[in-house]
Amino acid sequence: CLIGVLSSPDPRLREALIELEASMQTGGQMVLTDAEQRLDALLLKLKQEEMSREDFPPAMHFFRAKHLIQTSPIFRLLQKMPKGGALHVHDVSMVDVEWLVKNVTYRPHCYMCSTDNMSVRFIFSSQSPKPLARCSPWVLLENLRAKIVNTTDLDNSIRGNLSLFTDRDPEAVYPSQDVVWDRFEQAFQAVWGLVTYAPVFRDYFYQGLTQFYTDNVMYLELRAMLPEVYELDGSTHNKAWTMKTYQDITKQFVSTHPDFFGARIIFTHQRRANISAVAEAVKEAMQLKKDFPDFLAGFDLVGREDRGKPLWYFRDALSLPAKKGVQLPYFFHAGETDLEGTEVDQNLLDALLLNTSRIGHGFALLRHPVAKDLSRKRGVAVEVCPISNQVLKLVNDLRNHPAAALMLENHPLVISSDDPAMFGASGLSYDFYEAFVGFGGIKSHIGSLKELAMNSIRYSSLSREQQKEALLLWQRRWNTFVTENEFLKIN
Amino acid sequence: CLIGVLSSPDPRLREALIELEASMQTGGQMVLTDAEQRLDALLLKLKQEEMSREDFPPAMHFFRAKHLIQTSPIFRLLQKMPKGGALHVHDVSMVDVEWLVKNVTYRPHCYMCSTDNMSVRFIFSSQSPKPLARCSPWVLLENLRAKIVNTTDLDNSIRGNLSLFTDRDPEAVYPSQDVVWDRFEQAFQAVWGLVTYAPVFRDYFYQGLTQFYTDNVMYLELRAMLPEVYELDGSTHNKAWTMKTYQDITKQFVSTHPDFFGARIIFTHQRRANISAVAEAVKEAMQLKKDFPDFLAGFDLVGREDRGKPLWYFRDALSLPAKKGVQLPYFFHAGETDLEGTEVDQNLLDALLLNTSRIGHGFALLRHPVAKDLSRKRGVAVEVCPISNQVLKLVNDLRNHPAAALMLENHPLVISSDDPAMFGASGLSYDFYEAFVGFGGIKSHIGSLKELAMNSIRYSSLSREQQKEALLLWQRRWNTFVTENEFLKIN
Ligand SMILES: [Zn+2]
Ligand SMILES: [Zn+2]
Repeated sequence: CLIGVLSSPDPRLREALIELEASMQTGGQMVLTDAEQRLDALLLKLKQEEMSREDFPPAMHFFRAKHLIQTSPIFRLLQKMPKGGALHVHDVSMVDVEWLVKNVTYRPHCYMCSTDNMSVRFIFSSQSPKPLARCSPWVLLENLRAKIVNTTDLDNSIRGNLSLFTDRDPEAVYPSQDVVWDRFEQAFQAVWGLVTYAPVFRDYFYQGLTQFYTDNVMYLELRAMLPEVYELDGSTHNKAWTMKTYQDITKQFVSTHPDFFGARIIFTHQRRANISAVAEAVKEAMQLKKDFPDFLAGFDLVGREDRGKPLWYFRDALSLPAKKGVQLPYFFHAGETDLEGTEVDQNLLDALLLNTSRIGHGFALLRHPVAKDLSRKRGVAVEVCPISNQVLKLVNDLRNHPAAALMLENHPLVISSDDPAMFGASGLSYDFYEAFVGFGGIKSHIGSLKELAMNSIRYSSLSREQQKEALLLWQRRWNTFVTENEFLKIN
Repeated sequence: CLIGVLSSPDPRLREALIELEASMQTGGQMVLTDAEQRLDALLLKLKQEEMSREDFPPAMHFFRAKHLIQTSPIFRLLQKMPKGGALHVHDVSMVDVEWLVKNVTYRPHCYMCSTDNMSVRFIFSSQSPKPLARCSPWVLLENLRAKIVNTTDLDNSIRGNLSLFTDRDPEAVYPSQDVVWDRFEQAFQAVWGLVTYAPVFRDYFYQGLTQFYTDNVMYLELRAMLPEVYELDGSTHNKAWTMKTYQDITKQFVSTHPDFFGARIIFTHQRRANISAVAEAVKEAMQLKKDFPDFLAGFDLVGREDRGKPLWYFRDALSLPAKKGVQLPYFFHAGETDLEGTEVDQNLLDALLLNTSRIGHGFALLRHPVAKDLSRKRGVAVEVCPISNQVLKLVNDLRNHPAAALMLENHPLVISSDDPAMFGASGLSYDFYEAFVGFGGIKSHIGSLKELAMNSIRYSSLSREQQKEALLLWQRRWNTFVTENEFLKIN
């Protein structure tokens, strides 16, 4: 009997329990090929070396750890690894900031002003734009750059305003959640004026697909605000245009990159809005679902959860599709909080009651055993974004991320990167590193990585048929990856 | 059906699930009297105020939070609350350092030297003691104090060497686990020479009982190294003498404090030792269990888990009692690590296979679903020591302590303080504060506190009969506490 009281421990029982525990984890039941086992032996050796170093990257703030991660041989393997899909990424934080600075802000007609709370705003305009409240007069960057000899300082200052990343002590720069969220929202607004300019909008999305593709991600579900995209003359486009643009560019990208499977949009709205605005957004989403049935995945509410209204507050608006018999899948952010027991902390349960297809973050899931059980039984995957949770100060040492426990129970979950550009990351590899080396511990192995990648297809919004096709494509790329790396020499 | 897919959320189902979740937590099924409910309403109000403050103490390092906690009305209530027993406290860290400085180091014959790694050592001796390797020449403190005008600096410096507590930035002073554990062990050695001097040894234990009693703790299970206690002439006493002394002082204390229930000893040995030393210690423990059947609770291995040998390494030594048919309960420290998947990380399962009665810390339990299940089914309580885990750098923000999840599932657990004096804490109240306000969240309530206190008796080493008696005594004190505070005015 496994749980009987023993006088002296039986090594075979011990072995059996250790194996039982190992088999329960994500990927624990995966049958591995010989080649995969060879690659796994290599990974284990690398991970043990990594864990024995004094400055263990997952225990450090990502801003400090980034350059260490970049030199890690595990990271370099994870970059090459076909990771499947990225299911939790936001529209205006796909592309690294360097590209915005060097490419976008150098385009003609780009104006900038400085806000009175130490941020910047941008606008492209054929004529001098109307002044913005609480902002300095607009300066045409072309003129400004022509006047100064060394543009490095200017570019650095712009770069600093477009993301949270900093070389200074991140704990000192962002001492509290309030501070870091405030700077986060400021950076979004700074990026906003750049990326909602129609020509940039198109290029940005194409560049985003390119960066994820380069990171060996083959599919994307993009949470998109579907903003009013503007032209140089100030005219704007509606949401249908924006959707159509996303769709066209995706098709174009897939046609030139046949091993990229595609992208879909999750339309998102601010959770700080009032009920009628959310009801309006839900109705728009229903219409978009009708117009883009295969391209719109569903709907979500975004923004700082602790400061927004709880999902339950919007229950009538969010029940509209069910009431009208329209299929509108939900992909709610929920449980991105450490305020246990507040109204907002009820979002996890309410997301499930509102029949969500996945849960964004679910950081608080361990604090909700009933919701956790529901999510497991219904196969509602948690989208785990480790670096985001660390930068936004939910957890310090990523070994303590709650997904450690979830992975050990093979809870339905995928790894994603939320807003990689904002955090100085890119694609999915940094987050896979934190998951695999950080909260995965020594126990997670090649089977875990395989299952995480497969989860990203299994829990996507794709149809059964599409999933089959995507899995086939992924499997081909995976086999190549394994074959090319199983005999890799270390160092 | 609770887990069916719903089109539109049913508020009654929601209510039912919320209640189900609330009932699953520690104390969730406790039936409350009217008076307890009134006190609970007050606690909820206070907790909500506490959680809305910018500088939320459980999110901060305890060294920074301590003065905030001291002004918290919840803390003041928790101090008055009868907390039952303290089941995880170490012998030489019971009494606050102030008492050591002001009382012990001012006694005659007290010599001090300074080590070459910035610590100090003490010895009481009737004549000039033999020089100590890697330490300055011994100085008689009486002489030194007579020579200097202002003794405050000297006392401050001594105080700083006897604990980890500091007014400086704790993150800067203790940047890593290696640094903090090194200082921790140095401080133990500094205290050692003071408290193993026979007259101090007796007074220290009496003072320890007094401080826990004053903090409304009624019972103690003390993890004790049973050191060689020495006299002024250098002669030493054996373990039986030390046990006898503990027993006599306990009896003396109980006779003058009839609402204190008593104390028991868990004999501990360094886990850094070799197999034969541990086998020797187990044999000594078996003999002591024979000689002090009601006073020796059992045996444990202590010291930094990540640097010691795993329990499995000592399996033969630890199986001796079972082999000889002797009852020697174990109370193993296990899972005080964040190195998931290492050999040492197997200690949780091995402690259970070795039939441990409780688990010290069990910080890694969520990372071991099989061990967690065993511990739950067998009723093996986890001794949760929040401040210790924070100071020794396993977790930063105490809302992320794994016991949050354990409490929400009513996993068998007790709250304790490990080495309160080392951390600048005292008794149990600070740790109860972190548990109740920190990882307990808004959801934990008076019923949780009641169950935590009752757990400390239920999971103690006391016999059924003794537990009944202790529970009666505790219930009387609890009723008084509730009656005296149910109509408390806030501010
Ligand atoms: Zn997000
Ligand atoms: Zn301990």
